[in-house]
Amino acid sequence: MALQQSLQHIEINTNGEGFTNITAKLNDWVASSGMIEGLINLTLLHTSASLTINENADPRVLKDLSAFLKALVPEEGFKPISGHGAVRPYCHAEEGPDDMPAHIRTALTCTTMSLSIQAERIVLGTWQAIYLWEHRSVPHLRKIAIHAIGEMKGNQKHQFKTETSTILAKGNGQKLNEMVQDRHNPKAWAEDGGVATDIDLMVDRLHELSGGENNQ
Amino acid sequence: MALQQSLQHIEINTNGEGFTNITAKLNDWVASSGMIEGLINLTLLHTSASLTINENADPRVLKDLSAFLKALVPEEGFKPISGHGAVRPYCHAEEGPDDMPAHIRTALTCTTMSLSIQAERIVLGTWQAIYLWEHRSVPHLRKIAIHAIGEMKGNQKHQFKTETSTILAKGNGQKLNEMVQDRHNPKAWAEDGGVATDIDLMVDRLHELSGGENNQ
Amino acid sequence: MALQQSLQHIEINTNGEGFTNITAKLNDWVASSGMIEGLINLTLLHTSASLTINENADPRVLKDLSAFLKALVPEEGFKPISGHGAVRPYCHAEEGPDDMPAHIRTALTCTTMSLSIQAERIVLGTWQAIYLWEHRSVPHLRKIAIHAIGEMKGNQKHQFKTETSTILAKGNGQKLNEMVQDRHNPKAWAEDGGVATDIDLMVDRLHELSGGENNQ
Repeated sequence: MALQQSLQHIEINTNGEGFTNITAKLNDWVASSGMIEGLINLTLLHTSASLTINENADPRVLKDLSAFLKALVPEEGFKPISGHGAVRPYCHAEEGPDDMPAHIRTALTCTTMSLSIQAERIVLGTWQAIYLWEHRSVPHLRKIAIHAIGEMKGNQKHQFKTETSTILAKGNGQKLNEMVQDRHNPKAWAEDGGVATDIDLMVDRLHELSGGENNQ
Repeated sequence: MALQQSLQHIEINTNGEGFTNITAKLNDWVASSGMIEGLINLTLLHTSASLTINENADPRVLKDLSAFLKALVPEEGFKPISGHGAVRPYCHAEEGPDDMPAHIRTALTCTTMSLSIQAERIVLGTWQAIYLWEHRSVPHLRKIAIHAIGEMKGNQKHQFKTETSTILAKGNGQKLNEMVQDRHNPKAWAEDGGVATDIDLMVDRLHELSGGENNQ
Repeated sequence: MALQQSLQHIEINTNGEGFTNITAKLNDWVASSGMIEGLINLTLLHTSASLTINENADPRVLKDLSAFLKALVPEEGFKPISGHGAVRPYCHAEEGPDDMPAHIRTALTCTTMSLSIQAERIVLGTWQAIYLWEHRSVPHLRKIAIHAIGEMKGNQKHQFKTETSTILAKGNGQKLNEMVQDRHNPKAWAEDGGVATDIDLMVDRLHELSGGENNQ
């Protein structure tokens, strides 16, 4: 089967410094993309947060990771780990005391990563989860470019920028109802071409409109 | 030529903390996969070991790398590199004093990496080798998902999960015929041994047969 | 549209320790490759420099990054960040005091990275740039393998300097012998046409010859 590709941006709201487990969200995207087997590449589109893979079980692992990186790149500045010399504060300080440390923490971790998809899921070890690691103190909206190349389900089409793909024509009650039904069958939905998070909103809206129409 | 893909898991036994050079093993896999030119992606399926690329010549480079990372993430805990504050021990300590440092060392290095394949070999610089870097004290069995996308030899088929070893004994006409038959059954061919080493045997065999024929 | 790939090496002259913004050069390569949408993978073919993505606006961010990494991996050696123990100098010291720190700085950052191409440009966040980060003190010539897989413009051709097609005509002992010779010269073999389609020809030929042998 010829290989195909799919690219989309997703958004994640962070709660300030710390970890957001994005594994399930990524697997949902894989399912909705129609990709069965292939490579998936993630690019975090920011310079003060990271992508990382680490333990998914004991939350204290994340607590220790967080404390460690804050100690490794302290807000007050740094001195050589040989112990020689004085503390050097950061030059780039206008955006707050947590900003330059966040850039350095980003440089010491990952901005991009590629993984395998097999049987419609991302291949990970038993104890692995994929995290968005926010390095700034306050909550941020972060964007990730998700790109997959591989074998897609039969009718699936190359999906660059599928803003929508559904037209909400008034009076098309049949189609509307089918779409709503399809929400209960995510697989069918995926094959039908749907994707983003907007989809949920659209379906709600669709349902509304459809209901209105049916009630006329 | 249409691009194809191949995914397989390999296992590596480590000797406890330190480096295992996996370059040759990966190139063997590339040869056996039938991939001529393409991308290869590696995912280490663990959270207390890493993949890294570093010098392949002086073993003291690895010794220094190892000593450095142990000093950077010490088992006794850490304090800010500004020198301010007290030593903070790890919260996650049940799995041994080397476990949480191993998770942190993983976060500071790489879990996934993508490389190019050209002329059936991984593209690396003269002094580069690919290492599995074990961060735990004792030996572990580590799994790596290897995934390649690119141009594969002739009838080669998508090879998710195969295995190998075919012997082309001289005069083994039966076996030869079976192999040729298998060319019409790409799945069997792949499962029977991929093209890897078979190619060499085939060329030798071809040479033999051809020579014999010419001498008649 | 069928996916295609393109692989090429580019060279960058660095000015010694510090950053070279290679974003524009990479986008130029993308444009020249004819790739419209796809994945691009970068491999830096050295063990004392890195690839990194960081802020493209305030040059003081790069100044702080640089100062930080030099403090984190000092030339005079290191001691545990718990503050316990003595300074340990490097064992690998023959190539200069900046060489072993450069290897460690490489291990703590990135040697490979994959990104998306969309509308003929690399997908990056507003504030992101891709840098080659030189860790050695003096200028070096650095090579990067650039590999893209995706959809290319109409007439664009797969750019792996290969192509050919060798025909193994029956009784063409000379050609067969040349091919066998070429097995001892993998580069020539690759340039001569890759193994790809030849395999099919070889198997057919083998079948013929083998059949002949069995019929004797």
